[in-house]
Amino acid sequence: MNKNRLEAFSDGVLAIIITIMVLEMHVPHSAEPSALLPVLPVFLSYVLSFVYLAIYWNNHHHMLHTVSRVTGSILWANLHLLFWLSLFPFATGWMGQNHFAAGPTALYGAVLLMAAVAYMTLQRCIIVSQGPESLLKRAIGGDWKGKLSPMLYIVALAVSWLSPGVAQALFVLVALLWLIPDRRIERVFPSG
Amino acid sequence: MNKNRLEAFSDGVLAIIITIMVLEMHVPHSAEPSALLPVLPVFLSYVLSFVYLAIYWNNHHHMLHTVSRVTGSILWANLHLLFWLSLFPFATGWMGQNHFAAGPTALYGAVLLMAAVAYMTLQRCIIVSQGPESLLKRAIGGDWKGKLSPMLYIVALAVSWLSPGVAQALFVLVALLWLIPDRRIERVFPSG
Amino acid sequence: MNKNRLEAFSDGVLAIIITIMVLEMHVPHSAEPSALLPVLPVFLSYVLSFVYLAIYWNNHHHMLHTVSRVTGSILWANLHLLFWLSLFPFATGWMGQNHFAAGPTALYGAVLLMAAVAYMTLQRCIIVSQGPESLLKRAIGGDWKGKLSPMLYIVALAVSWLSPGVAQALFVLVALLWLIPDRRIERVFPSG
Amino acid sequence: MNKNRLEAFSDGVLAIIITIMVLEMHVPHSAEPSALLPVLPVFLSYVLSFVYLAIYWNNHHHMLHTVSRVTGSILWANLHLLFWLSLFPFATGWMGQNHFAAGPTALYGAVLLMAAVAYMTLQRCIIVSQGPESLLKRAIGGDWKGKLSPMLYIVALAVSWLSPGVAQALFVLVALLWLIPDRRIERVFPSG
Repeated sequence: MNKNRLEAFSDGVLAIIITIMVLEMHVPHSAEPSALLPVLPVFLSYVLSFVYLAIYWNNHHHMLHTVSRVTGSILWANLHLLFWLSLFPFATGWMGQNHFAAGPTALYGAVLLMAAVAYMTLQRCIIVSQGPESLLKRAIGGDWKGKLSPMLYIVALAVSWLSPGVAQALFVLVALLWLIPDRRIERVFPSG
Repeated sequence: MNKNRLEAFSDGVLAIIITIMVLEMHVPHSAEPSALLPVLPVFLSYVLSFVYLAIYWNNHHHMLHTVSRVTGSILWANLHLLFWLSLFPFATGWMGQNHFAAGPTALYGAVLLMAAVAYMTLQRCIIVSQGPESLLKRAIGGDWKGKLSPMLYIVALAVSWLSPGVAQALFVLVALLWLIPDRRIERVFPSG
Repeated sequence: MNKNRLEAFSDGVLAIIITIMVLEMHVPHSAEPSALLPVLPVFLSYVLSFVYLAIYWNNHHHMLHTVSRVTGSILWANLHLLFWLSLFPFATGWMGQNHFAAGPTALYGAVLLMAAVAYMTLQRCIIVSQGPESLLKRAIGGDWKGKLSPMLYIVALAVSWLSPGVAQALFVLVALLWLIPDRRIERVFPSG
Repeated sequence: MNKNRLEAFSDGVLAIIITIMVLEMHVPHSAEPSALLPVLPVFLSYVLSFVYLAIYWNNHHHMLHTVSRVTGSILWANLHLLFWLSLFPFATGWMGQNHFAAGPTALYGAVLLMAAVAYMTLQRCIIVSQGPESLLKRAIGGDWKGKLSPMLYIVALAVSWLSPGVAQALFVLVALLWLIPDRRIERVFPSG
């Protein structure tokens, strides 16, 4: 399996997910500026999901940078990650169209959690395939961000039923944590 | 005809098919968790189709790996395969939205069957183009999975009118058969 | 301007157009097989448009094969072609959902005509950019198919108001004419 | 970060945006030619947005041509640009479906303005990353078009509430200004 085709397919799927999400922002029938008000929550959830998908695309690229051979387990772990990311438009639309209510917020958190688990699984598969001298293992180091994020999603999930606002604040916090690109891998490939 | 452009176009079409299928999961209007219940069958049929399309993408890649020259018949056989795969979102949405009723289950089986026939036709075209020393022919060997799958689809089609559940179980069974990537071709290209 | 990026962008747009067309086949609400009957005309018009877009993709590739330098006029002529092709989903959906009525058939013919004109303009731009020794000019020769098609579309347009069926038969005829890949260019690049 | 993957991802997103915009042109239920009349404003706004996105794609390519190393700031400035461009389908659909009313026209202008600001930010990030000998800085020179466009968008925004037609004329004017491809960069890379 050629790495370039894996990257190209992943890029294609991510580009489509990030773009069709905008279709959940339904064009209002009225031309009044006030008609945009009900669209605002959908817009805000779109911004959040756009940032998350951009982070995934970015980190996915950095991670694949360390891969030289694509094994069957890497291939399927990658498809598994794409599956959970493909649920973003649905979760984003439900949360936005229901003005950040408790149930949709919990589902959004669950999708974030599953995507994070899928990402860690892919990371694990790559490290295993690279053996004891794994470049990726060296690059991610303690991986505190990768370990902290799913915990924060679980907290958000639990809290979403009592106070959806706190859960959403946690979603934003994790996104901010990751907005800083993964310089750890850049450090290992200084000339990359 | 350049193989890279054929691969890139096929990847693009497959990436879009796999992603727009998620649009058939309509966002419910209510924010109640119970509003997700009617979406569940659509979700399950989405999972099944995602796995099928992932298998096609994976095997398609392995198959094209053996191609060095793209003939006119390979090109059109490939477009013919993409045509049947492009019907997955429709068949998936109809089956899911009607809670796996008999008619939609039969249509889903028919689309699976036609896609399998189109895949075998493409395989045939590639083998013919490679002549008696065909790499692909050597790689697929007896091709028991390729021969068994259409038969199981035909059984599923026949049985779907009496017992849709059995047909769906057969769809899942064939998917599981194929989930194991086509190691036969990997064996021929050990350093691939 | 790099030819690869022009090809990749064109492939992306064509892959999306060919795939989102399937969204015009709305999933019926009923699970009865008879519920597929009203979808049949949309399906037939989808098949026709799929074949047309596949032909365009194929010939577009052969044509770009002869290009070594992308000029500004080639770039804009290519975008102009993509614009008319992007109207296929709308024209296809309108014709199919109205069971091949006169008006939608005429619009379909008009879109086919404009796409053909845009294709010929792109061909012209490439030939001009290649100077008197143009490879493409040599390859297309008399280009009887390129000259006949727009005339047949004009006949179809005129006749669609009296007898839409005749116009549709002409659409199918032109598609069959082109289904034979453009071997003229392959002849000039025998090792391609 | 590899420039090719940044280009490929940007191309993918732009190809999808430009193509799904056409979905805002809803297929009319009636087969009468007069049923196309209400679609006409959506078509016209689609043409305008298609031209704008084609210009962005074209200039984006020329700009990235000068980049040899993708920094974190270039990467995020590029995603920021894609975000604003992804709002084109929504703004286009709202303006078209409301027959160029004042509010939607103002929103369209606001999206154009934000995309222009995002483009200038990306340009700035690239110039900074290239240091004092920046190829891009030399290539764009005084950049009068880049400086004039946002001003014209602001004028259009202010005037849209009084006279939407004047605002739309300004949108067309700016598009015409840019339709001439950015020959400044071509001049610096004469053999490009």
